[in-house]
Amino acid sequence: MINFNEEQMIKNGEIIYRQRESIEKISDTLAKEGFDLLFFTSSGGSMAMMQPFEMWINQKSAIPTGSMISADFTAMGCNRITDKTVAFLTSKSGDTPDTVEAARFLKQRGVRLVSVTGVPDSPLEKLSDFNITYGEGRPQELVFYLLIGRLLWNQGAFPDYPRFAEELKHLAAALVEVRKQADPFCLEYAKKYCREPYHIWIGSGDLWPMAYSYSMCTLEESLWLKTKSVSSPEFFHGTLELLEDDVCVTLLVTEGPTRFLDEKVKAFARQHTHKLTCFDAGDYALPGISASFRSLLSPVIMAAVLQRVSKNMEAVTGHSLDIRRYYRKGGY
Amino acid sequence: MINFNEEQMIKNGEIIYRQRESIEKISDTLAKEGFDLLFFTSSGGSMAMMQPFEMWINQKSAIPTGSMISADFTAMGCNRITDKTVAFLTSKSGDTPDTVEAARFLKQRGVRLVSVTGVPDSPLEKLSDFNITYGEGRPQELVFYLLIGRLLWNQGAFPDYPRFAEELKHLAAALVEVRKQADPFCLEYAKKYCREPYHIWIGSGDLWPMAYSYSMCTLEESLWLKTKSVSSPEFFHGTLELLEDDVCVTLLVTEGPTRFLDEKVKAFARQHTHKLTCFDAGDYALPGISASFRSLLSPVIMAAVLQRVSKNMEAVTGHSLDIRRYYRKGGY
Repeated sequence: MINFNEEQMIKNGEIIYRQRESIEKISDTLAKEGFDLLFFTSSGGSMAMMQPFEMWINQKSAIPTGSMISADFTAMGCNRITDKTVAFLTSKSGDTPDTVEAARFLKQRGVRLVSVTGVPDSPLEKLSDFNITYGEGRPQELVFYLLIGRLLWNQGAFPDYPRFAEELKHLAAALVEVRKQADPFCLEYAKKYCREPYHIWIGSGDLWPMAYSYSMCTLEESLWLKTKSVSSPEFFHGTLELLEDDVCVTLLVTEGPTRFLDEKVKAFARQHTHKLTCFDAGDYALPGISASFRSLLSPVIMAAVLQRVSKNMEAVTGHSLDIRRYYRKGGY
Repeated sequence: MINFNEEQMIKNGEIIYRQRESIEKISDTLAKEGFDLLFFTSSGGSMAMMQPFEMWINQKSAIPTGSMISADFTAMGCNRITDKTVAFLTSKSGDTPDTVEAARFLKQRGVRLVSVTGVPDSPLEKLSDFNITYGEGRPQELVFYLLIGRLLWNQGAFPDYPRFAEELKHLAAALVEVRKQADPFCLEYAKKYCREPYHIWIGSGDLWPMAYSYSMCTLEESLWLKTKSVSSPEFFHGTLELLEDDVCVTLLVTEGPTRFLDEKVKAFARQHTHKLTCFDAGDYALPGISASFRSLLSPVIMAAVLQRVSKNMEAVTGHSLDIRRYYRKGGY
């Protein structure tokens, strides 16, 4: 298995998990202070990473939520924001300009900010009322499972949270196993499709944001592969017409409530292209984690699987994932 | 000008405009009855057509709004829906399965439904508390300018509505002029780019839904051209890396509040590809309509411009816009 350091991955999980108490304290403080809206805003892949958590809140509770891409929010505003609102923002670098600008805009309106950043002492952290810095910690989603899980528990909407949080102790190790299980298939996928002229990526519900961000932030940004991403239900409103035997389609299948929408795509696509690949979150064992929690975990399972696609693509093509033509090189 | 019937277009505008009174009555009734949420749900291009109206409400008022793709809504629900909610749904055929299913789901929860349909006596109309059937009427957006404009006026959020509604009498004719002005440029665009292997379409704010739906519902569905659509701010979080001299990029520039986000894309893209086209809503005269209302009208201006792209693409390629491989042919 190329570019795989099991020990480091377990350690990276611990970096986040040992902050559990301070993360939960943030949720407890917010629950005590009260709020009228939980608002999610960020940019690119960071925004996509948070979106499943907004969906989770919506499915489990009546807590009002909202979300907007940071640049859209700064330009157009959101009429639901008040000084009782709490906003969640995340950025690995902590200095993504659009996200920092949105933080300022929110702050001016008296909104409490919770930020999740990879680098300490960032501009985003400095603007925030609460911050979690994960450094080398992975997966970042673990911060949100604890933060949002505890918040739901505080509202009586997720009584199983204590058991869930206990089991999350095993998450990093479970995701190591997912990677091992996935690797041969991902290597084969990388070899087969790393030179395709066009990739269609499809997903729904809690995996739609990943179909969107993986195709954009990894295939396009890091590997310079041309893509189209579309959600499973929307696929049938146009993109389906592109299918021919040799059109490369990749479907992410969730274990969440929209699974049947993915299954419709699968049934259709396999009749109309020889190049369909399904990555199904349900195919991967999660040692140490109860079956009843699996439906919450499709995003991290899939992120682990797709990491193996990235690492294998990098090796097969010899195209480093770290080369950029333009991104963060100035000039825009 | 190929496939262009000026007289018919004027007549099609009149079909909708003469329903003004009954449309406004719906808004007045809703205002009188009250509501806790205006919820927009539909599928594909119909959903995209409504989205600018949700943005408009958000910018002009504190009225709570929400929106979801119908299939997502039926699968995941929306925790803000109550029996005081009003939902807007639109479907040309009035029988789009996902949309009809969402209507049923909403109805069961006591939500009042306002539907806008092209065909009379449709399943969607039958489920609705209020319906507007536009038949051959165009542009369909005119229904929403009247419906939502009047609703905002009822809430004191758009005092200029009466003047706006009067001027909308000229909309269909103004859009005929837009088409005439746009046609030579659109013909040239069609000739240049109708055989491109990959199209990147970009837009923001009230034109993001159009960049999304035009690329999917026209270029992909009707012309079988491969596309990627991305919003102007999100372009900088991945897709930018695809730019090379010969990558075909089409940017829709709005006159709305996100215009500066489009201008950033324009400044960047013109340095990195020779195949950049900008369609700027601001370039087109709208005879009979005040300058102060223009910023609301980018979606209909752009729809008129892009109709000329479609008609010219059809003529240049000889690929009829009406041929489908799969859509609505069963089997999925």
